[in-house]
Amino acid sequence: MQAPVTISLDAMGGDHGPSVVVPGVQSFVRAHGGEGVRFLLHGDETRIRAELAHCSLPADTVDIRHTDKVVAMDEKPAQAMRRGKGSSLWNAVEAVKTGEAGGVVSAGNTGALMAISKLILRMSAPGLERPAIVASWPTFKGHTAVLDVGANIGSDAEQLVEFAIMGEAFQTAVRGTVRPTIGLLNVGSEDMKGNEQVKEAHAILRDGPFDLNYYGFVEGDDIAKGTVDVVVTDGFTGNIALKTAEGTARYISALLREALTSNLQAKLGAAIAMPALKKMREKIDPSAINGGPLLGLNGIVVKSHGGADAKGFGNAIRIAVDLARSDYMTKVGANLGKLDAVFDHSSPPAAPAGEPLQ
Amino acid sequence: MQAPVTISLDAMGGDHGPSVVVPGVQSFVRAHGGEGVRFLLHGDETRIRAELAHCSLPADTVDIRHTDKVVAMDEKPAQAMRRGKGSSLWNAVEAVKTGEAGGVVSAGNTGALMAISKLILRMSAPGLERPAIVASWPTFKGHTAVLDVGANIGSDAEQLVEFAIMGEAFQTAVRGTVRPTIGLLNVGSEDMKGNEQVKEAHAILRDGPFDLNYYGFVEGDDIAKGTVDVVVTDGFTGNIALKTAEGTARYISALLREALTSNLQAKLGAAIAMPALKKMREKIDPSAINGGPLLGLNGIVVKSHGGADAKGFGNAIRIAVDLARSDYMTKVGANLGKLDAVFDHSSPPAAPAGEPLQ
Repeated sequence: MQAPVTISLDAMGGDHGPSVVVPGVQSFVRAHGGEGVRFLLHGDETRIRAELAHCSLPADTVDIRHTDKVVAMDEKPAQAMRRGKGSSLWNAVEAVKTGEAGGVVSAGNTGALMAISKLILRMSAPGLERPAIVASWPTFKGHTAVLDVGANIGSDAEQLVEFAIMGEAFQTAVRGTVRPTIGLLNVGSEDMKGNEQVKEAHAILRDGPFDLNYYGFVEGDDIAKGTVDVVVTDGFTGNIALKTAEGTARYISALLREALTSNLQAKLGAAIAMPALKKMREKIDPSAINGGPLLGLNGIVVKSHGGADAKGFGNAIRIAVDLARSDYMTKVGANLGKLDAVFDHSSPPAAPAGEPLQ
Repeated sequence: MQAPVTISLDAMGGDHGPSVVVPGVQSFVRAHGGEGVRFLLHGDETRIRAELAHCSLPADTVDIRHTDKVVAMDEKPAQAMRRGKGSSLWNAVEAVKTGEAGGVVSAGNTGALMAISKLILRMSAPGLERPAIVASWPTFKGHTAVLDVGANIGSDAEQLVEFAIMGEAFQTAVRGTVRPTIGLLNVGSEDMKGNEQVKEAHAILRDGPFDLNYYGFVEGDDIAKGTVDVVVTDGFTGNIALKTAEGTARYISALLREALTSNLQAKLGAAIAMPALKKMREKIDPSAINGGPLLGLNGIVVKSHGGADAKGFGNAIRIAVDLARSDYMTKVGANLGKLDAVFDHSSPPAAPAGEPLQ
């Protein structure tokens, strides 16, 4: 019997709103049983009920919290913060703050989710301007957590160390990895390589007071190799690496599709090999890796891709459930507490470490 | 009739030395005719002659310049600069300085090649600490030039502008692209996104005095899409993006190989589709894109991958020949001259823009 947990959902978020979120709940329950998991669905009650009618969820699994208000997908974060109060996104996050829910999932506007989460829940890591987003990257050995993939621009050494702490706790909570190895993304493996932030973070992770299984520097090709369980990088580099990899995967998949439909003989061969090719496709299926937690907040917030399907949304729910049921928050808290021993937090920094959120 | 040109080769460089360099010359001549192209081969005369005996090159195509001295693949750049004089690498670069050759190709130690080229040829771009390396990236539309992929760490706005100028001239010279479009790699496409260097370079490229076809910001997945002909980024991000893409390509290829050999039926399908799959593999064949010029020097220097085969080395030669025959150097010079209008070069910078070469 697993611990009971309540997950708050922004039912109106994403490109499809309730028509993906509700089947997403169903997909999660089918794939993972859903024992002891309850959901708060924030949004338009009529639309949510219409979707629930097509599903076969136990009645006590879902609670609807009606609101007419919605944050638009293209709304600016500052606007969403000012005008978002009472929206499905806002209320979904607030349920975590009040303790009613152990975590929240939204496929809504990333900037708005980040801004509203930060406003309601507050940051828990002293050096962070904004939450770090972690990606689960498929590798030869399973999945590697890569962070930050896009929230903080130009992270300093302290932020990189915070990413290491949060990524380690995430990987343990969600993948069950025992003492995950941590690598710092760099352009070479020797101590003197890289920019100042990376070199400083390297020295701290190697010699600092944190109980982390630090591996050292890794390079871009080490991510897919699965050399380490957690890859730490600044949000600028991480975002570009992630999108470059997505672009490469799409390019090679397109070449493969083109090759296997280029003539009759190729089509025949493809038809015969199809079962094996399908299995391969599942390994790099975006729905299977959907769900990017925003780490560094006082609460669990998971961002689903705006265009995710029900299976993908269900996977984002799974990540929220795993995090909420684990000791992620306590573990992160313990290690973040040790940051004071390394960095001086007695006075506020002269300039914010990250970019203003826009 | 094409203009005659002489290319200087470090015959001892790379993992295989003359046994790849000499067949590499043959491969270039077979693939591109080699009319009007002469080669200076620097290295161990006996070993070079032994390799030449297996080839069918016209006698007047190749000139051997004997030396016993070799820079080791693991030698530190500082050491190579002090002790490398008279080595095959050194002499090959020096032939460009004396004007005997129009360009040089080496598969040797990257750090040593960079340091020795910089020492002998000097930098031609005012903001550059070290030469920029450009990668030819296969895309949906052909090839995109991506630079810098690893020489300069933490490039400032001026370096980024220099990369744009050099990348544009490179793409025109080697790919024949007319008025190549240039994109600046960033985490989003809006003006306010990104770090300070990227925002400053963006404003200069958009409004500055350079006659460039500037597109604006691009994201990681735009590289493989071929959204622009030239992608500009700092050496840290570029190196990580390139290696991440290589790692992703290798991962997906391995999954494909695994799928197509997983059982008898898959193997049969693969055998039937093999001709089409082979054509696909050629498109992402590393030998077809081997050869990364070091831009920003007063002379043409092309780095071949240390592990390249003869076909790959032949492709690096092709790049050197195309650059040497084009108006690349004049074109770059004209645009770099305009940098003075934007950046103040009257006094030396307080601190070097790049990392010390180690």
